[in-house]
Amino acid sequence: MTRTQKGLAAFAIVLVLFFGLVIFRVWGAKPPSTMKVTPLPQGEYDPAVWGKAYPLEYQSYQRNLETAPSPTGYGGSVKYQKAERQTEIYTNFKGNPFSKDYTEDRGHLYALDDLRESKRISPASKGACITCKTPFLEKFFQDMGWGYAAAPLNDLMAQAKFPVGCANCHDPQTLALRVINPAFAEAMQRRGIDLSKATREEMRSYVCAQCHAEYYFAPNTYQVVFPWDKGLTPQQMYEYYAAKPNGFAYDFLQDDSKVPVLKAQHPDYEEWQNGIHGKFGVSCADCHMPYIRKGGRKYSSHWMSSPLKQLNDACGKCHNQEQEKLFDQVKAIQDNVWQLQRTAGLTVEQAHKAIAAAAAKPGANQSELANARELTRKAQWYWDYVAAANSQGFHNQTQELHTLGLSIDLAHQAIDAANRAGQ
Amino acid sequence: MTRTQKGLAAFAIVLVLFFGLVIFRVWGAKPPSTMKVTPLPQGEYDPAVWGKAYPLEYQSYQRNLETAPSPTGYGGSVKYQKAERQTEIYTNFKGNPFSKDYTEDRGHLYALDDLRESKRISPASKGACITCKTPFLEKFFQDMGWGYAAAPLNDLMAQAKFPVGCANCHDPQTLALRVINPAFAEAMQRRGIDLSKATREEMRSYVCAQCHAEYYFAPNTYQVVFPWDKGLTPQQMYEYYAAKPNGFAYDFLQDDSKVPVLKAQHPDYEEWQNGIHGKFGVSCADCHMPYIRKGGRKYSSHWMSSPLKQLNDACGKCHNQEQEKLFDQVKAIQDNVWQLQRTAGLTVEQAHKAIAAAAAKPGANQSELANARELTRKAQWYWDYVAAANSQGFHNQTQELHTLGLSIDLAHQAIDAANRAGQ
Repeated sequence: MTRTQKGLAAFAIVLVLFFGLVIFRVWGAKPPSTMKVTPLPQGEYDPAVWGKAYPLEYQSYQRNLETAPSPTGYGGSVKYQKAERQTEIYTNFKGNPFSKDYTEDRGHLYALDDLRESKRISPASKGACITCKTPFLEKFFQDMGWGYAAAPLNDLMAQAKFPVGCANCHDPQTLALRVINPAFAEAMQRRGIDLSKATREEMRSYVCAQCHAEYYFAPNTYQVVFPWDKGLTPQQMYEYYAAKPNGFAYDFLQDDSKVPVLKAQHPDYEEWQNGIHGKFGVSCADCHMPYIRKGGRKYSSHWMSSPLKQLNDACGKCHNQEQEKLFDQVKAIQDNVWQLQRTAGLTVEQAHKAIAAAAAKPGANQSELANARELTRKAQWYWDYVAAANSQGFHNQTQELHTLGLSIDLAHQAIDAANRAGQ
Repeated sequence: MTRTQKGLAAFAIVLVLFFGLVIFRVWGAKPPSTMKVTPLPQGEYDPAVWGKAYPLEYQSYQRNLETAPSPTGYGGSVKYQKAERQTEIYTNFKGNPFSKDYTEDRGHLYALDDLRESKRISPASKGACITCKTPFLEKFFQDMGWGYAAAPLNDLMAQAKFPVGCANCHDPQTLALRVINPAFAEAMQRRGIDLSKATREEMRSYVCAQCHAEYYFAPNTYQVVFPWDKGLTPQQMYEYYAAKPNGFAYDFLQDDSKVPVLKAQHPDYEEWQNGIHGKFGVSCADCHMPYIRKGGRKYSSHWMSSPLKQLNDACGKCHNQEQEKLFDQVKAIQDNVWQLQRTAGLTVEQAHKAIAAAAAKPGANQSELANARELTRKAQWYWDYVAAANSQGFHNQTQELHTLGLSIDLAHQAIDAANRAGQ
């Protein structure tokens, strides 16, 4: 070899090494394409058994036992009565157990404990309430079909040994992502979406969506139904409910105003899919279950909580700005949503009171009263769609701030109508 | 050379070429660090003269003559009466020339023509009105100090030969970015910001901010003042105005309600600096004057218009998602802001009418009337802060949707107070 040839060869080697490193980094950012799968028997619901096969995932799953406020001060996994911070809850849900007991959620591992401790539950409660609390849902539906929904809750509680866990989202044999809530599968089918053709990235949202969504219980059967047939916006769901689907007209009559109220239930998937992350294909798991490196292995964090608790792993994968600024941006969105949410909730409260006052007057105008009740029902639905969801508006600030603006307007219109009714 | 050596050398050459290309692309994405400067005399205001030295920039500047709707349907550079689409303008500005003539802006090149054609201008109009219409502002202020603001507008119009152009933002000798509006410089000084220490990236927003901002004319002197002493949010500026700065109390009394109205003037800089792009250091010019490549040269587009008209050059530099999705996102924000803006504007209109009706009644409660007028003044300011700005809320959706929610609430409260006053 000449000196030139030697130099060239050395240079080539350096380049190859450097280039190899680049390729390694770029490829390294992607999830491992293969993972060692340990087939477990179908019907294995014990997370501890899964944990022996998948220790890193299990270790992070156990972190769902931690209870801590969210870094922005909204949400979090500490159990407290929401009405303490939002006094409008006492009035807006008067006539419904939500006015007596409405706590902030703790993590998945507390799902059964929280259900057991809830004052909204009684010996008369139905099996439908256990739908999203345990992987035993699979067994109940296999054994009874939708019959489980009308069975006594206490009977099913006695069988359900584990709270939301591995088998809710994974096939024990293959580890493939799967959905076990029949209500979700049926709703998607009605929307023309074939779950068997879902991509892995879609499944990384669907497994969450099967429970983090609005639903109602069909009268008599207690079957769980997702109100998505007309679409997933607050307007589209309100329109769906207006047609009294399956004979379902409302969740309860507000005690004072007799407004037929729809209680919203954490429409997290609905917010997200229409928000900026959903529209651009960022899945629930991308933010709530970020990839973590540990001991030369890469795994999905199974500590499902606020992404702000692991901001760098969660947000930093795509947003390479300073962490503090990212945090401030989330906080600003939540602060603004919170303020409008309180204004909307308190105005809805005034509307209930104005209707009650007007209705108590002899000769009150019944047509104006009916008008005021419809306006209040809608205003409350719009308020509750945002208030009942878990992101304090972050999942879709465009939609949620707008929805609260509409709620404020409708609630004031309701007060006006009630005042006219009582004149 | 052995066959192996030959292969290695060939491989090294391919790698070097490939790697060189990567470096070229990465470095090529940055603006040219040097640019050939042709010193022009101070006081050279004719864009055509500048155009000989900087033909590509001038060519793009000439595109400001194009009048076209914005791709989302909001804003744009076609002149039309805003009241045609927002009928609340007739009432909300009744008693002020804005109710007679309030057109959508055309481009910078029409600044003097549009001023001349405006029905808001009369022979009694003052020089202050020419502040942001021409580079001759520099000369007027050099010759007369703030005296130009109280001089007859017609006299200055006769001297101002060119509309907003090169010299408004560039030093003719050095091409350095500069600000010539004394109102901006003074406001920044009061905020403790030394413009002489501004970075180039900051100047790429300040040159726009010197005119795209809220202002008022001080009584008697007509001096232009930016109301930024307490901050730049709608709340902070409202608080500033409440103290009657320089004896300025309001822009006009609404004819029917006698509400002392503050007319907002395009607070574009204020919206942006508190919005996501402003907070993360993306300048006005980054989006509105994107870098363009042509004939081996790179230059800043001086066609200042909606970034959506050159979406790939403007947004695509940072956001590598599909153009259609980016566009849809902007459109969704603007649609939502527009809807709340109309609701707010129309509710403010109702408030003016309710106050007028109540005030006409003998024995109307004066204290409630005063309350209703203050609520309407604030509701209208919040509405107008968003409605008068140029981005239809895009610059800061978090703040603007929230601001409109507040406006709707306040306007309804005003109607309630007026109704109580008239009972």
